[in-house]
Amino acid sequence: MHESSTGLRFKRLLLTGAAGTLGRMLRPRMRRYCETLRVSDLAAMEPAGDGEEVVIAPLEDEAAMFALLEGVDAVLHFGGVSVEKPFSTVLPANIVGAYNLYEAARRQGTQRIVFASSNHVTGFYGQGETISAHVVPRPDTFYGLSKAFGENLAQFYFDRHGLETVTLRIGSCLPEPVNRRQLSSWISHDDMERLLVAVLSAPVVGHSIVYGVSDNRSTWWDNSQGRQVGYRPQDSSEPWRAAVEAKQPHIDPARPEARYQGGAFVVLGPFPFAGQE
Amino acid sequence: MHESSTGLRFKRLLLTGAAGTLGRMLRPRMRRYCETLRVSDLAAMEPAGDGEEVVIAPLEDEAAMFALLEGVDAVLHFGGVSVEKPFSTVLPANIVGAYNLYEAARRQGTQRIVFASSNHVTGFYGQGETISAHVVPRPDTFYGLSKAFGENLAQFYFDRHGLETVTLRIGSCLPEPVNRRQLSSWISHDDMERLLVAVLSAPVVGHSIVYGVSDNRSTWWDNSQGRQVGYRPQDSSEPWRAAVEAKQPHIDPARPEARYQGGAFVVLGPFPFAGQE
Amino acid sequence: MHESSTGLRFKRLLLTGAAGTLGRMLRPRMRRYCETLRVSDLAAMEPAGDGEEVVIAPLEDEAAMFALLEGVDAVLHFGGVSVEKPFSTVLPANIVGAYNLYEAARRQGTQRIVFASSNHVTGFYGQGETISAHVVPRPDTFYGLSKAFGENLAQFYFDRHGLETVTLRIGSCLPEPVNRRQLSSWISHDDMERLLVAVLSAPVVGHSIVYGVSDNRSTWWDNSQGRQVGYRPQDSSEPWRAAVEAKQPHIDPARPEARYQGGAFVVLGPFPFAGQE
Amino acid sequence: MHESSTGLRFKRLLLTGAAGTLGRMLRPRMRRYCETLRVSDLAAMEPAGDGEEVVIAPLEDEAAMFALLEGVDAVLHFGGVSVEKPFSTVLPANIVGAYNLYEAARRQGTQRIVFASSNHVTGFYGQGETISAHVVPRPDTFYGLSKAFGENLAQFYFDRHGLETVTLRIGSCLPEPVNRRQLSSWISHDDMERLLVAVLSAPVVGHSIVYGVSDNRSTWWDNSQGRQVGYRPQDSSEPWRAAVEAKQPHIDPARPEARYQGGAFVVLGPFPFAGQE
Amino acid sequence: MHESSTGLRFKRLLLTGAAGTLGRMLRPRMRRYCETLRVSDLAAMEPAGDGEEVVIAPLEDEAAMFALLEGVDAVLHFGGVSVEKPFSTVLPANIVGAYNLYEAARRQGTQRIVFASSNHVTGFYGQGETISAHVVPRPDTFYGLSKAFGENLAQFYFDRHGLETVTLRIGSCLPEPVNRRQLSSWISHDDMERLLVAVLSAPVVGHSIVYGVSDNRSTWWDNSQGRQVGYRPQDSSEPWRAAVEAKQPHIDPARPEARYQGGAFVVLGPFPFAGQE
Amino acid sequence: MHESSTGLRFKRLLLTGAAGTLGRMLRPRMRRYCETLRVSDLAAMEPAGDGEEVVIAPLEDEAAMFALLEGVDAVLHFGGVSVEKPFSTVLPANIVGAYNLYEAARRQGTQRIVFASSNHVTGFYGQGETISAHVVPRPDTFYGLSKAFGENLAQFYFDRHGLETVTLRIGSCLPEPVNRRQLSSWISHDDMERLLVAVLSAPVVGHSIVYGVSDNRSTWWDNSQGRQVGYRPQDSSEPWRAAVEAKQPHIDPARPEARYQGGAFVVLGPFPFAGQE
Repeated sequence: MHESSTGLRFKRLLLTGAAGTLGRMLRPRMRRYCETLRVSDLAAMEPAGDGEEVVIAPLEDEAAMFALLEGVDAVLHFGGVSVEKPFSTVLPANIVGAYNLYEAARRQGTQRIVFASSNHVTGFYGQGETISAHVVPRPDTFYGLSKAFGENLAQFYFDRHGLETVTLRIGSCLPEPVNRRQLSSWISHDDMERLLVAVLSAPVVGHSIVYGVSDNRSTWWDNSQGRQVGYRPQDSSEPWRAAVEAKQPHIDPARPEARYQGGAFVVLGPFPFAGQE
Repeated sequence: MHESSTGLRFKRLLLTGAAGTLGRMLRPRMRRYCETLRVSDLAAMEPAGDGEEVVIAPLEDEAAMFALLEGVDAVLHFGGVSVEKPFSTVLPANIVGAYNLYEAARRQGTQRIVFASSNHVTGFYGQGETISAHVVPRPDTFYGLSKAFGENLAQFYFDRHGLETVTLRIGSCLPEPVNRRQLSSWISHDDMERLLVAVLSAPVVGHSIVYGVSDNRSTWWDNSQGRQVGYRPQDSSEPWRAAVEAKQPHIDPARPEARYQGGAFVVLGPFPFAGQE
Repeated sequence: MHESSTGLRFKRLLLTGAAGTLGRMLRPRMRRYCETLRVSDLAAMEPAGDGEEVVIAPLEDEAAMFALLEGVDAVLHFGGVSVEKPFSTVLPANIVGAYNLYEAARRQGTQRIVFASSNHVTGFYGQGETISAHVVPRPDTFYGLSKAFGENLAQFYFDRHGLETVTLRIGSCLPEPVNRRQLSSWISHDDMERLLVAVLSAPVVGHSIVYGVSDNRSTWWDNSQGRQVGYRPQDSSEPWRAAVEAKQPHIDPARPEARYQGGAFVVLGPFPFAGQE
Repeated sequence: MHESSTGLRFKRLLLTGAAGTLGRMLRPRMRRYCETLRVSDLAAMEPAGDGEEVVIAPLEDEAAMFALLEGVDAVLHFGGVSVEKPFSTVLPANIVGAYNLYEAARRQGTQRIVFASSNHVTGFYGQGETISAHVVPRPDTFYGLSKAFGENLAQFYFDRHGLETVTLRIGSCLPEPVNRRQLSSWISHDDMERLLVAVLSAPVVGHSIVYGVSDNRSTWWDNSQGRQVGYRPQDSSEPWRAAVEAKQPHIDPARPEARYQGGAFVVLGPFPFAGQE
Repeated sequence: MHESSTGLRFKRLLLTGAAGTLGRMLRPRMRRYCETLRVSDLAAMEPAGDGEEVVIAPLEDEAAMFALLEGVDAVLHFGGVSVEKPFSTVLPANIVGAYNLYEAARRQGTQRIVFASSNHVTGFYGQGETISAHVVPRPDTFYGLSKAFGENLAQFYFDRHGLETVTLRIGSCLPEPVNRRQLSSWISHDDMERLLVAVLSAPVVGHSIVYGVSDNRSTWWDNSQGRQVGYRPQDSSEPWRAAVEAKQPHIDPARPEARYQGGAFVVLGPFPFAGQE
Repeated sequence: MHESSTGLRFKRLLLTGAAGTLGRMLRPRMRRYCETLRVSDLAAMEPAGDGEEVVIAPLEDEAAMFALLEGVDAVLHFGGVSVEKPFSTVLPANIVGAYNLYEAARRQGTQRIVFASSNHVTGFYGQGETISAHVVPRPDTFYGLSKAFGENLAQFYFDRHGLETVTLRIGSCLPEPVNRRQLSSWISHDDMERLLVAVLSAPVVGHSIVYGVSDNRSTWWDNSQGRQVGYRPQDSSEPWRAAVEAKQPHIDPARPEARYQGGAFVVLGPFPFAGQE
């Protein structure tokens, strides 16, 4: 991101899930917006660089999470399971883990959490529908279900304890879009950084829900909440369109993975698809 | 309920939470709508009467739940924690337990689940607001949060597996209303039975969310989904109004418990109220 | 209908489709609200009684329609095809016929038309949805499509020429409901009369769209426009529920005719059902 | 009103406009709900009965209003101009007067105000439209404009000072409806009393806006806020319909007074009607 | 259109109405997006160029239409009457013709139809209103009425047969805007091409309704569905504003043609304007 | 503003409040769009330049206002009190003054008024909410209350007399944004000129309400009505963001002035803040 620098400057930012794909991409980028960047994960990470702190901390370990949040101004919560897994795998990381994070943040006095949720919270809406951030969740997986839980948890900690969150329903954050669905759902790495900067610097956010998506030519999401908190994407999937359409010339609109916003996620798992609508 | 009988007749109905307050009230009433009523709980229950089956089955025991659902046409899921408790207590009963119930129902081929959710899923809306069943959840407790999870789970099992649910956001189901908030949130025992009969006999329900409340003079809930599935309450809190108002003559509208629909639940727990709005 | 009589009194009312099932039922009832009741159809009708005029007039005959409207204050337009037929059959009766009727009414100075439309204008909405009169039409048949045309025609004649219409999206007008879908869609003969009296006597209607349905326990239609023009149904399908449910104990919610408001109409015709949603 | 008594019992209620038509009707009725009823007006009133206090106090007299509010728990503000008058007449009574009342109430610690507003705040909506209490005001007169001011003032005193108000957009409060418009807009004297009792006894109201209308067969107003605060009208204009329609058999829908909800008010004043829509 | 080329490539596209003004403009442009461009009309057309097929086929001729659709992947349906005409002229071309086209497409297995509808489907909305694609139609002419029929037909063929359509409510497609209304309704030839490319290449469209309008400074249409299917206009009427305003300095807002979105169409025909609102 | 000139050219424009901050900024800019620019205020102004007329006219002086409007085509009404003052100060200038202006305009035949309203009409909405121009007013001051009165007055003069108004709810019109709230509410001087040109040149406006704000990265206002009348802002607060955030690094979201859109206005005045929500 080569724009004019912003004034954003935290004392200590925490990035969870720093060993994951998004975490590794974000770590050097977010380093610039704080005096100290604390990064955490369950797995091994790159050693701490200048102004960095590296902490191994499983999300389901309540005491470890309490320690992890000490002295933290704001959190980028990218930790946890981010693909479909059995419920027993999703539960400790994404449900117990989210609770541990919020409770630790409340007790430690953290000001704001950016919660990496997912478009799979609303994956069972049709690709022919435009939805806002206020529709009833229709998760397409246990993974999406666990993210819906995190969103409700964030609302509760704001209403009850005044702890602010911006929930990001992230589309497809990849170097480039690789199929036709991603022409609508793609968010570039630079736009993801812009989005994080925007929601960290917005003066008052309460609990806001924002779709994390670039300025693509086609979209299913009314992202007016994104605009309200100052997110202005500058990338688009359009330059990749011709190549993607050539590679995937035809879509059978009768197949569930083509009909729903969640794409192939709606048919994941060991059981056949039996949904009706 | 002394109305003309309905044709409703299941082969086997399952009532979970049968040792609880609502479960004990509902057991003899629901007996009339099925050939066999299976009742379950963690705790001891009355011995099986004619046409009854009594099963001890903890919700968090996956195998026990699978066995419990065998041969069941429809479920009235009233089991689990129904007041505010620490998250570690709510988790196994209401989150893991709900998953176990739905997964067992899917595998056993159950047709429909009636899920006893709660008005505490939306307890942080103001008493000056009228809300529909489609607003963003604003749970007021870990209890309410767990019920919001169950609602999303029900939506997922319908969208993915075609398993139908009617979610009931139950108000205050008591013999009579005992404070001014309950003049709005009360549902009589007879209306609860009418509601269960309605949602069990509605031909097609998908996943519907209905507020469980009597025909009270004042209300915060737009219950048009209730009318759609055929719920027509016949009781009202009005006969108790004078007595309740005499007992509780003044409300301080600045106190959180008077401002929010969730009432005293919004201030439960060991921490002070720090919400902003 | 044994209520206190209303003051409604037209000089000359026209009832088209008088040889049809609804027409025959309505003829003696509407006789009371006018000095002269003119009845018309393509087919033979009962001879004219006292204060009646009987006219054979095919809807597709422009000149006959012009003559038919002479001296008419208000029209109850129940003529035309009222079941699914090939497009070539629906076209002259319901599309050309509706045009002929409106153009004749405009030239003859008729004040108001009550247009018998159908719930099949919106038959492809799901039985799990509650719709208002302002949704985008989703007709389920050529018949429903022709009624949607008539509704737009009525809107045009009001906007362009000031000719008022109340469009009635009639549910199932039968002596009694005979299947589970009709528990929601039924309108009694008495309520149909009440509806006609209401919309004829409302002082100002512009072009209003009202669902024609009794006060059934379950419904898919938000009929607030009906209330606005003064329709207050007094009958309900409820007394027939037990018998209907006994006769039709189970519904397979995966079949199109159970999923859509239009019921069996959505699968009529010589071609297989290939809709997606 | 002969229903079972309610527990409502204020120490001191203030009724302004007590010499007006509505004020005289309400004075004996409201006497029952308080220990002391203070009544005020600009004009002479009946002498004080048992438990009554009679005060002459012009609304535009700031000091008089401050004194008037001393010791008052709740106010029924029916004072001021209630028909169309030149702006110079409406201004002191309804704009300055409303300010004086609210400022006095704030300084004296009054808990709640019931503000008699008018349907003429929204009189330029069409009789073919159904409106809620949240639409943009379209006043039909200077009188309606002044009432819109009072509604905004009430909102401000609640948001800024926590002083609660229920605004009543009163239809036509008369012994009986006398023309076809009033078949929709009429509120009986008994229902007006029921409405006042409801809004005085509702536990929490913030600033609510309610249409004051009986349970008439036809209506233009979605009064869900009325239901929320517990208003359940029991009268209807229906028994007068036949007589009213006989007296006024035809309406010319092209005349402004027939097209707009405000009726004849929309054409009051010395200037011709030049509105466009 | 000089943008980077897209990958769009059909085997055989059909363009109806190829002899009309829009058809002639679109023919060379659409040639680039397919191997074979079949063009049809009632009237004579330019001879077939390389990769073109030219067919004379009246829309009202069912057999000709069936033959015309053979081997066609997608249709751009610009044929029929596109100005106001007597109903008897509009009927065969636009109502019977639309039916013939859809029925032929269904039987021949065509994947998608782009239906050239018109802003005159909603021409009776006011120029002071912003409308979405989901409002109730208010056609301003028989022409607009026939296009509303086509839209409902498209919805039916999608719901019943899975045949996808994008309906384009085209504004004023001209080389440049020539009056003040067109400053809002204009679409450039390049943007029309962009729009067709977008809706042909969108992966899943169901039945979508999109306004066909450039990125003008002022607009009456909320075109979020256009954005969803990937339409991004790049032209604007702004460069012509000064010239247009100089030529037409004043608008009398009381004249119907200035008040309604349909402009002069609302007063076409041999009869005086008698609309009320 | 260095764009291509527009054709806008009035015979005589009136700018009230010409001695105020905005008035002085606008006077030379608006001079270009008319043959004669009449400027007025209560206070002394710069002497008349070429093509200018300077008039001292207090808004509360009915006769002076009548004279002031003579020969005026359109008005930019920026006069009156524009900060919080006691009600007795706001009343004559903003309430009586607005009435005098509209009544004079009606009698003199003025075509259109641009009314400088304020975001303080809706200042009690939260900074976490996005509002449209159609929400219920929640004024934050007597100043905001008086502007809400002016908006209703404008609606009345359009509905009753056909006099068109565009109401501008102006944010913070300053050379540059000076605090974090203004990053959302700022409008540049150039954009203010663009806005005035747009609303003066739009062909038909009725009574439209538009937010006056630049194209800032973050916003609380859905300004679709602005787009409809042709307003396209070209400036943004973004270049000032880093400096503003450095100067004001932290916001305490619990303080009323940080929570509400009206900012510090919500706590102005001699009384403590006692609002609840």
